[in-house]
Amino acid sequence: MTRHGAEVRVARYPDGAVTPEDFEIVEVPVGHPGPGQVLVRNTWTSVDPGLRLRLRADAPAGYFAAFPLGKAMDGVMAVGEVVESRADGFAPGDLVSHAQGWREYAVVDPAAVQLGGVGTLTRLDAGVAEPQVFLGPLGGMGLTAYAGLHVVDALRGGETVWVSAAAGAVGSLAVQIAKLCGNRVIASAGSDEKVAWLRDELGVEAFNYRDGLDDRLRAVAPDGIDVYFDSVGSDHLEAALDHLNRRGRVAMCGSIAEYDSGPKGPRNLFLAVSKDLTLRGFRGSSNLHLMAEMQGRISAWLRSGELVHRETVFTGLDSAPRALAAMIAGDTTGKTLVSIG
Amino acid sequence: MTRHGAEVRVARYPDGAVTPEDFEIVEVPVGHPGPGQVLVRNTWTSVDPGLRLRLRADAPAGYFAAFPLGKAMDGVMAVGEVVESRADGFAPGDLVSHAQGWREYAVVDPAAVQLGGVGTLTRLDAGVAEPQVFLGPLGGMGLTAYAGLHVVDALRGGETVWVSAAAGAVGSLAVQIAKLCGNRVIASAGSDEKVAWLRDELGVEAFNYRDGLDDRLRAVAPDGIDVYFDSVGSDHLEAALDHLNRRGRVAMCGSIAEYDSGPKGPRNLFLAVSKDLTLRGFRGSSNLHLMAEMQGRISAWLRSGELVHRETVFTGLDSAPRALAAMIAGDTTGKTLVSIG
Repeated sequence: MTRHGAEVRVARYPDGAVTPEDFEIVEVPVGHPGPGQVLVRNTWTSVDPGLRLRLRADAPAGYFAAFPLGKAMDGVMAVGEVVESRADGFAPGDLVSHAQGWREYAVVDPAAVQLGGVGTLTRLDAGVAEPQVFLGPLGGMGLTAYAGLHVVDALRGGETVWVSAAAGAVGSLAVQIAKLCGNRVIASAGSDEKVAWLRDELGVEAFNYRDGLDDRLRAVAPDGIDVYFDSVGSDHLEAALDHLNRRGRVAMCGSIAEYDSGPKGPRNLFLAVSKDLTLRGFRGSSNLHLMAEMQGRISAWLRSGELVHRETVFTGLDSAPRALAAMIAGDTTGKTLVSIG
Repeated sequence: MTRHGAEVRVARYPDGAVTPEDFEIVEVPVGHPGPGQVLVRNTWTSVDPGLRLRLRADAPAGYFAAFPLGKAMDGVMAVGEVVESRADGFAPGDLVSHAQGWREYAVVDPAAVQLGGVGTLTRLDAGVAEPQVFLGPLGGMGLTAYAGLHVVDALRGGETVWVSAAAGAVGSLAVQIAKLCGNRVIASAGSDEKVAWLRDELGVEAFNYRDGLDDRLRAVAPDGIDVYFDSVGSDHLEAALDHLNRRGRVAMCGSIAEYDSGPKGPRNLFLAVSKDLTLRGFRGSSNLHLMAEMQGRISAWLRSGELVHRETVFTGLDSAPRALAAMIAGDTTGKTLVSIG
């Protein structure tokens, strides 16, 4: 019997906003694992802002290399169940994470280092959390939030931290980790519903950036901010540079405001000189040494109920393109996920 | 007898390039020092790129606040000789530095902290170096070069460091300090004469940025750069972001390319995320704790001849506006100074 499974392919690079028509869903035969490989049936796959960067003909080679047209999309996180194994240490029924998502079945080589290690085939402890949590708080999202606060020395607490895109997968974790570490946290998002969630559920000061970044920051942080956690770039980064205090820091993990429109540099970057500011770009995966520490702290906070997580779930692999478009448009809250069969 | 002395005042804020007509030279009566004050006859005054930032009606308050029109320009470094003292620790004949340059005589209060401490009235050891050297390698220029390399961890050596504006006061020191600390140094400047000086006198690889930043960097550093020392901003900073290696760092101490034209943000700042880059803005004066260490090392290198310094000297206070215009236009090499009577 030959198994078949669906996979998502890029049909064309979007011109402006991503639409489902930029993708095609194709049913393909599923191979058996070769020596040292495992076959995984994916049950959840991740929807990440960074995917947008790879939907470009002119994407530079390297970390955000273009997805090739007409092929399965490599380098996207998934969790699933091992169905066949020819690799030591993996057996049918194991819960695993890896980087060959956006398809129903994947043949995975445990020896291949994926996404800087974050996406390398990993056995997960099903007793710790539900499977999809390893794509969110206990996976790359948790690592990105935790590492971002680490690289700007904001885990020690006692400062004022602004987190943008704060209702998103990484932002909502950065908000809560920063608060649990003893900082005063200011959160911003793009809808009143998200702002209400941030205030009521996460218990932080929050504002809708559409009401005016500069005015709202001045009102909520008249004494300035010390740290800015940036997933947005563009006007948000400029506002942060304006409102940062002396020796302030920016953790830069993305610039979603620029992914459709193209890049904009902050026109007030010179303030970094006059205010002794540090801007640190980082990948979560460059901080794998923090993974165990992060998982230990976050799983304890999840158990105690001190940290909550929210998911926006789309059902069925064919909803993945729609999920990506919705996420980039700001229409999802928390971690955006696709549940597969 | 009432002493008289000349002072430079801003007559109008320049529209585009600085011209001598933007200033006026006025002869004013010189007061006697009050209790706790000293009267200094300035012998050298400094010409710094940062002055351009203060020649704007719309300069923000703070570190680079606008010079008021029709008044002496405060916050500009000078060295001179005490001629009258009513302050403990200062006597006629003392060589001193302070922040009331661009005038022939200044009444200075030793208790006033100027320019973050760098400009506070300080007695200098005339045996160590010629007076004007305290406006260059042994003063704020040396501190800025040394601190910039320090904040991006480039004093430990072993890396490839690109210094722009490398024939300038700060750049030429950064080049030499980085090299003496064991880095491979690449220097850029805007004329073939400067490039020849960098190659022949400072002994580093050098190129003229007008020959094409991207091409020249690719040719001279095919394996990329680890550190970029930025005094230029604009296209130089963009080129650096393109050519920096993983975990590269930028020390940002100014952006002279933008001072006349207005600010431009780097359009490829997102590379900071994918390459784990750190951009650190800094003021020399925020690193006063390094002053003694810097002076110790640089004075030893000056004595041994391992570090050289070049000066472009204009004679007479009335040449100061012309000196500033020439420096911003890139027509000076090394430290730009005005010798006063």
